[in-house]
Amino acid sequence: MMETQTTGAVGPENALISRGEQPLNLEMPFESLQEFITPNEQFYVRCHFPVPKIDSETWLLRIEGAVRTPIELTYASLRELPTHTIPATVECAGNGRSFLEPKVKGVAWGLGAVGNAHWTGVLLRDVLERAGVDTDAREVILEGADRGEIKETPRPSGEIHYARSVPLEKARRDLLLAFAMNGEPLTPEHGFPLRAVVPGWFGMAAVKWLQRVIVTAKPFHGYYQSIDYTYWHRRGGLPNLVPLGEMQVKAQIARPRTSEVVPAGTTYRVHGAAWGGEEEVVQVEISVDGRRTWNSAALRGEAVKNAWRFWEFQWQTPSESGDRTLVARATDAAGRAQPPQRIADYGTYMINHLLPIHVQVR
Amino acid sequence: MMETQTTGAVGPENALISRGEQPLNLEMPFESLQEFITPNEQFYVRCHFPVPKIDSETWLLRIEGAVRTPIELTYASLRELPTHTIPATVECAGNGRSFLEPKVKGVAWGLGAVGNAHWTGVLLRDVLERAGVDTDAREVILEGADRGEIKETPRPSGEIHYARSVPLEKARRDLLLAFAMNGEPLTPEHGFPLRAVVPGWFGMAAVKWLQRVIVTAKPFHGYYQSIDYTYWHRRGGLPNLVPLGEMQVKAQIARPRTSEVVPAGTTYRVHGAAWGGEEEVVQVEISVDGRRTWNSAALRGEAVKNAWRFWEFQWQTPSESGDRTLVARATDAAGRAQPPQRIADYGTYMINHLLPIHVQVR
Repeated sequence: MMETQTTGAVGPENALISRGEQPLNLEMPFESLQEFITPNEQFYVRCHFPVPKIDSETWLLRIEGAVRTPIELTYASLRELPTHTIPATVECAGNGRSFLEPKVKGVAWGLGAVGNAHWTGVLLRDVLERAGVDTDAREVILEGADRGEIKETPRPSGEIHYARSVPLEKARRDLLLAFAMNGEPLTPEHGFPLRAVVPGWFGMAAVKWLQRVIVTAKPFHGYYQSIDYTYWHRRGGLPNLVPLGEMQVKAQIARPRTSEVVPAGTTYRVHGAAWGGEEEVVQVEISVDGRRTWNSAALRGEAVKNAWRFWEFQWQTPSESGDRTLVARATDAAGRAQPPQRIADYGTYMINHLLPIHVQVR
Repeated sequence: MMETQTTGAVGPENALISRGEQPLNLEMPFESLQEFITPNEQFYVRCHFPVPKIDSETWLLRIEGAVRTPIELTYASLRELPTHTIPATVECAGNGRSFLEPKVKGVAWGLGAVGNAHWTGVLLRDVLERAGVDTDAREVILEGADRGEIKETPRPSGEIHYARSVPLEKARRDLLLAFAMNGEPLTPEHGFPLRAVVPGWFGMAAVKWLQRVIVTAKPFHGYYQSIDYTYWHRRGGLPNLVPLGEMQVKAQIARPRTSEVVPAGTTYRVHGAAWGGEEEVVQVEISVDGRRTWNSAALRGEAVKNAWRFWEFQWQTPSESGDRTLVARATDAAGRAQPPQRIADYGTYMINHLLPIHVQVR
């Protein structure tokens, strides 16, 4: 029996928003952002196929490919390995897609396909050490138990499993095989019994329902890192299709929400969260006049590696009624800032350009 | 002034069949196959964008990227290099697509998106030697002057040039920069002033209107070798999207054509051509009873490297009327044979499964 630990009060106003039932896609109403740790009940859910029903008694994790000794781990044997708990913000690579103009294909996420949790599990490097990685290995492919047919062309024939690869160097540095989320065992929709957590990377790398880790010397060009979850990167003027990886630096405004009526002549607490990839956010700025002037927002708490940072700004609202446009922008420790305009080569992903939030002062 | 050398009589019954005007796509009526060398007027045309109008006086070929000395060649300086003339059969990777069931997207080629020509030009290796290739180089990217916007997603933004890469080893072995086709300067629709000819490879590698050769240490993942001109190759059970390359072994029946009425009780000369990739065709077999029994076809002429081989079979047609199904199959020197059934992972390309030709004996 697993005990459920309540991590936050989730009222009806905070309930997840459905973005599809088959497959199941749910997002958090981002305006309800309150806690540094997203309650499990509020954490967004992204599925590509039906949620697999897995019995942890019979489930196995296979480590194979370019290794000295392929191994199989039972759930019990996995739980005997040293465990680690790390915070990590996970954002869907298509978060914010509903704000794109013109409209594009894909799940129409608002701002809430992002969450921050404490993840408990086993470091992949501890498992890889037991298998013994070949010297020419370059990537690890993470394969989930979820599977189904792709409908759109170009597509592979028959059913495929969801699978993504991560460079071996990154996988060895901090990739976690997580069995618990905020102190609770994973729920089926979050990947029970085991999922990957790839700190600083978009959610598509955090493969759920893990069943195989395949070490490979050749780059993997599976469906979800060629046709899907890719963008165009220019090299020598020529666009190259490359897999998405690290999350892009971004500040999101939780309140006021779009079209919110804000009282005139008062102090309003504009607040939200900011996150990046593998570097911490060092600055968040707010414009309340449509990007003409910028004000520093106060960063709250301490910087936590791979986790988002909450920020707030006390806005002295105008004394007269009128429409106002708020914009937040973040910069990370590597000096990377949000692009002012949408980058067309990002396609339907990596939506981190400056996003105007229109409100009404009354 | 260029003189036109007539390479074959092309009557109205042999005229190219239009498969689109914008972009221009034309195919040979394969039933008119007669000559080992396809007359230029009968050679299929495949375009992705409008045909560029190029002045050979101002045109330049740039050799750049992972080279010691980037160089620019004028048309005149290119013509001063040692020339080579090679035969090569070039087949569009989608040739035969109209026979696929269910119907798929793409130009609806019959059997005639294939031709065999003598190509005259300069070996790429002679040009690369002058530039000096870096030791870590792995591919050469061939960029055409043709360009335009891609309409379907996922697509890079703005206009792109047609571009394909070839492994450096293959490029050095036999890639020809051709300025003439069957003794005539290239016509605009065949790539004037210069095109690539990649012996044994599908036509998508034979880049026309060449303007840049970019040597690269990193694999190229351009539009035409990721989203387009790719197929699914299984590795460890996982489909990988890989670029098309070598042509697949194939025998095509020129006559009888589909639905042809064949006289009963006579000797009918079944004939056609067979080709493969980098290996020669060593056997062609014909079935006249829907694949129950197979007869050896006679291979005509001598085997010519990288060129198709004509074959024929004297069919003693039945004395009674009825429907008959003819099938040809080829095997190459490496023992590769045509697959009996369509391979779904090939998508809309590499259509070399056994193709029944239904005729009526009367």
